[in-house]
Amino acid sequence: MTDIFDRLRGNPGPLGQFADYAEGYFVFPKLEGPIGPRMRFQGREVIFWSANDYLGLCNHPEVLEADAKAAAQYGMFYPMGARAMSGETEEHQQLERELAEFVDKEAAYLLNFGYQGMVSTIDALVGRHDVIVYDSDSHACIVDGVRLHMGKSFTYKHNDIESLEKNLVRATKVAQEQGGGILVVTEGVFGMRGLQGKIKEICDLKSKYSFRLLVDDAHGFGTLGKTGAGVGEEQDCQDQIDVYFSTFAKSMAGFGAFIAGDADIIRILKYNLRSQIFAKSLTMPMVIGGLKRLDLLRTRPEIKAKLWENVHKLQNGLVERGFNIGGSNTCVTPVMMEGSTVEATLLSRDLRENFGIFTSVVIYPVIPKGMILLRLIPTASHTDSEINETLAAFEEIQKKLVSGFYKEQEKKLLEEKNLQFKDR
Amino acid sequence: MTDIFDRLRGNPGPLGQFADYAEGYFVFPKLEGPIGPRMRFQGREVIFWSANDYLGLCNHPEVLEADAKAAAQYGMFYPMGARAMSGETEEHQQLERELAEFVDKEAAYLLNFGYQGMVSTIDALVGRHDVIVYDSDSHACIVDGVRLHMGKSFTYKHNDIESLEKNLVRATKVAQEQGGGILVVTEGVFGMRGLQGKIKEICDLKSKYSFRLLVDDAHGFGTLGKTGAGVGEEQDCQDQIDVYFSTFAKSMAGFGAFIAGDADIIRILKYNLRSQIFAKSLTMPMVIGGLKRLDLLRTRPEIKAKLWENVHKLQNGLVERGFNIGGSNTCVTPVMMEGSTVEATLLSRDLRENFGIFTSVVIYPVIPKGMILLRLIPTASHTDSEINETLAAFEEIQKKLVSGFYKEQEKKLLEEKNLQFKDR
Repeated sequence: MTDIFDRLRGNPGPLGQFADYAEGYFVFPKLEGPIGPRMRFQGREVIFWSANDYLGLCNHPEVLEADAKAAAQYGMFYPMGARAMSGETEEHQQLERELAEFVDKEAAYLLNFGYQGMVSTIDALVGRHDVIVYDSDSHACIVDGVRLHMGKSFTYKHNDIESLEKNLVRATKVAQEQGGGILVVTEGVFGMRGLQGKIKEICDLKSKYSFRLLVDDAHGFGTLGKTGAGVGEEQDCQDQIDVYFSTFAKSMAGFGAFIAGDADIIRILKYNLRSQIFAKSLTMPMVIGGLKRLDLLRTRPEIKAKLWENVHKLQNGLVERGFNIGGSNTCVTPVMMEGSTVEATLLSRDLRENFGIFTSVVIYPVIPKGMILLRLIPTASHTDSEINETLAAFEEIQKKLVSGFYKEQEKKLLEEKNLQFKDR
Repeated sequence: MTDIFDRLRGNPGPLGQFADYAEGYFVFPKLEGPIGPRMRFQGREVIFWSANDYLGLCNHPEVLEADAKAAAQYGMFYPMGARAMSGETEEHQQLERELAEFVDKEAAYLLNFGYQGMVSTIDALVGRHDVIVYDSDSHACIVDGVRLHMGKSFTYKHNDIESLEKNLVRATKVAQEQGGGILVVTEGVFGMRGLQGKIKEICDLKSKYSFRLLVDDAHGFGTLGKTGAGVGEEQDCQDQIDVYFSTFAKSMAGFGAFIAGDADIIRILKYNLRSQIFAKSLTMPMVIGGLKRLDLLRTRPEIKAKLWENVHKLQNGLVERGFNIGGSNTCVTPVMMEGSTVEATLLSRDLRENFGIFTSVVIYPVIPKGMILLRLIPTASHTDSEINETLAAFEEIQKKLVSGFYKEQEKKLLEEKNLQFKDR
């Protein structure tokens, strides 16, 4: 027998093992000042590429005013408890009506937080005889939702329709044996590497297989499609997405989330989402602030146009300079290079210290060993000068990487400090 | 094979089956006006007993001012993404230091939402060889956390130390076989029936069994103990609670939550809580507003004194009038009567329509068949007049219940409408 705490102390986890080395710099970095393309990090200004505030709404004066006015009137507690108990308001219902209309669905339901909202949506949709088939690169909230499932689940290779079809064949067999159904879960945009989910192709499989489709469009809502209604609009298959999900933590510059779909199904979900039935309703300032954000999405198309202008400038500039951005067809801009995990951190440190550029650095095991992934999130707020400075800096660090500069640093560092990291 | 949506349509769930009958009245009721002991429901004023805002802080002018000022400066999005990625601020750390000190632990960590925070805390604490032992009446967020566990778990009878000990014997056997440890999970206060968890007695079992104890003190934090530090302070065993958890959605009149415990364990958890690593940091206005609320908890003991004055007036008044409040030793005040589920709704409707009293009504399957449970949450904001009106009204409806008045109504209603409800 062992003590749980002793075991944790002995194995602090894949991220925790780096704590002493990385805390405050690579993990839990403290960015200061108003959110925007230039923020302060460790006392100096950096060009900042890690806010998912695609449309730059988080500091929009009308948004701040709406948030502040609602907070002054309602505080952070309103409307009390769970939606079903004491957390219902006219404003919640209005935002739901407007969201449903915006994403072209009959009905929508607000979620008090995206992560648990997705977990409970999956949980409420399936029974033990049902089968879940989901993309292997799905976000943690999808994975945790699937983990609650008592029945069978299959993953298919990331964005691979052939692999999906193979698994649909397996799933159909199991579902037939058990008298269950099939739920396919995937994302509209994969936030790490910036590829759109192949939603249209998945929908086309409905003619051959019987399944329902749940799409997490966190990064697509507000950025994709003619009106910003997301991946379903972009790929012209919104009517085939059975349950559409998006967080408010990206384009909507807030928190919370919503699901949308057929009115009767949304109504049933509303009575069965455990994290919503047993936890507090979305706070009123985010609901009133949400109405304002949605209004800006609808009425200021120039904001999304500016976002895409920036996306193209940045992505074209990177591709022109020979960078591999993995074929991104979204705003998410991954820059993939070859090198070790330690090289990745040294390069990233160089970028921050000597070039004043702050990006997220994604490491193994999120990506394969030997790959360095710097993730840039362009927003409507970035300017040409920030894009150009960044492109120039990337050119420099790429040269240094190829010349072995960081490899050399790595050798010295590991020798000096006698550092060792587990692969997992 | 079946279609998931067809199955849902055929079985809308334990709560969903009542939708047509209950929506807008018993479920999803819309309370209007500022939160307080008198609110508006369906156009008329009601005395309101269903806000978990124990200390009445939600409308405290200093709280509203703090929330509004922070919202005006930061909006609802700050600080961007996940705590580990881009969501760290000095204010988050300050609130953690102050919370840790307040509950007498080395360290604390903020959670972006209580429900998913608890789910991930359980998930991060145990591995597949560990065993979870938890109270059968635990909140849904604990249940969902346990559902993620790949290893063994046992429930013990609600607040029953003998049953807990039996299960600790079983758990110890399994843990020894598997080389795992034991996590006991329970609540400081059971929010439905108002009993304190027997935390002290559980802690005493540590001399006989090896386990770690996680306590969800949602209703205890701010209400129990000399300083309001919760159930551990109240029962003088805070040092034996290994991980202390509370939401901000009750006494703190907000949302979000925190865990507290030994510094090294909290630090490891911070790197391993999936809902925190992969989802947005708690929004800044709730952090700055949280500092203000905690300050009021610490510096205005008269607020908690007033709460308990009201609790005693209400509970003594009910007991004097012969009501069964189930031995509540907390602020949660359940009033238990005998009758059917339909009688419960008729009685509750009578209370609202003819006496202007709004309480939650808890029905089967949350409580046994044949029991009516009306749940009252007294707060520091209630006044004598609200308490006295409520006591008088309860006397009346009790008489009507005993005389068979609601039974008669039920018969008529079921005949007229030819209604039938499934038990589950």
